[in-house]
Amino acid sequence: MTEKKKTTIVLFSGDYDKAMAAYIIANGAAAYDHEVTIFHTFWGLNALRKDEHIPVKKGFMEKMFGKMMPKGANKMGLSKMNFAGFGPKMIKDIIKKHNAVPLPQLIEMAQEQEVKLVACTMTMDLLGLKQEELLDSIDYAGVAAYLADAEEGNVNLFI
Amino acid sequence: MTEKKKTTIVLFSGDYDKAMAAYIIANGAAAYDHEVTIFHTFWGLNALRKDEHIPVKKGFMEKMFGKMMPKGANKMGLSKMNFAGFGPKMIKDIIKKHNAVPLPQLIEMAQEQEVKLVACTMTMDLLGLKQEELLDSIDYAGVAAYLADAEEGNVNLFI
Amino acid sequence: MTEKKKTTIVLFSGDYDKAMAAYIIANGAAAYDHEVTIFHTFWGLNALRKDEHIPVKKGFMEKMFGKMMPKGANKMGLSKMNFAGFGPKMIKDIIKKHNAVPLPQLIEMAQEQEVKLVACTMTMDLLGLKQEELLDSIDYAGVAAYLADAEEGNVNLFI
Repeated sequence: MTEKKKTTIVLFSGDYDKAMAAYIIANGAAAYDHEVTIFHTFWGLNALRKDEHIPVKKGFMEKMFGKMMPKGANKMGLSKMNFAGFGPKMIKDIIKKHNAVPLPQLIEMAQEQEVKLVACTMTMDLLGLKQEELLDSIDYAGVAAYLADAEEGNVNLFI
Repeated sequence: MTEKKKTTIVLFSGDYDKAMAAYIIANGAAAYDHEVTIFHTFWGLNALRKDEHIPVKKGFMEKMFGKMMPKGANKMGLSKMNFAGFGPKMIKDIIKKHNAVPLPQLIEMAQEQEVKLVACTMTMDLLGLKQEELLDSIDYAGVAAYLADAEEGNVNLFI
Repeated sequence: MTEKKKTTIVLFSGDYDKAMAAYIIANGAAAYDHEVTIFHTFWGLNALRKDEHIPVKKGFMEKMFGKMMPKGANKMGLSKMNFAGFGPKMIKDIIKKHNAVPLPQLIEMAQEQEVKLVACTMTMDLLGLKQEELLDSIDYAGVAAYLADAEEGNVNLFI
């Protein structure tokens, strides 16, 4: 009878701090027994990349994008005070010092809590990202699937 | 009896990629028979600018803003990897290669699907943008009109 | 019997223009008799900082963050066209010229309208911000309190 509350997040941003905020809200909502979906699109897809190089066949442009974009959550930059890569180090030091949870572990927690992690197939295609390059056990879908979740959602955010 | 679902998007950002995401979601929602409003405010107004120079009387500051801001969707930069204007060219090439839809056509599609495109009058005033400089057949309104739509909305996003 | 509509905003951004948008929507919603909460997290906390130096005991990293981040709404930069700090001056001049309301006054208005201003305790801890450094009569809470508000919300935005 009682329906689960739903939270959906579009993670568009490829910034470490914004992705942290997204995953903290997602994990919080999952702990409160919401059904949670994070729909990763554009630069947000980088949070789902494996951190090693995966050899896949790509066109020239797609290879360039692949090289220029961060390989996984741990390599992402900050939206503010990035200081040519020094900012993320500062944030990570301070996360460790305050016993907070760094982004890669937040993503693992989300997977353990059965937050649905979705990669947007249209932007994967645009940026030349292949399924082999992304984390295991994630979903693949387009904007229609996102909207189906969001229109039933209690909390819908674009980050 | 059955009420239409509503989607509202505040498009604050003047970035090509973020505006693309906004219009893809909007067009998707319209295809699913939602009533959709995109409320363009601050830099998001640039997506609605005509791409030619429109001679209108303005103060000095307003003229400067007018010159510095992109004239229309096609001139907008990227939120990431803009590379002094090279990034948008890359994205446009890749959009063409993958038969995806570039931003100006996404905006046309939205207009054909009767997505309500609104320009925020308060920020038009601030940035010195005149109705003559913006696309035809759009609406003009303030935050009150936005809230009236959003409070009935199923999906409300700020982009 | 009739329940108040609810609006919640996560203010993640530390940009003057984005914070303006957040507070304009919040003040509008409060004027329409919504219950409004702005949950300030990460760089959005800077909007709540007092503009003077408050002597508090901090570690080295926390001191550095404290020094590098803007002290209060009036010191924040723009998300676009910041021009090494010249942009905010332009926006403020143009706000004055058009009799619009600058950010510090928007925050005061929000407090007068009983918009609930919340500082995220987890990110305060991360960035080393102390209650003494933030505005008086604000609330302190975590993601759980945010979600409790948002899941009842009609309009939930992430800015």
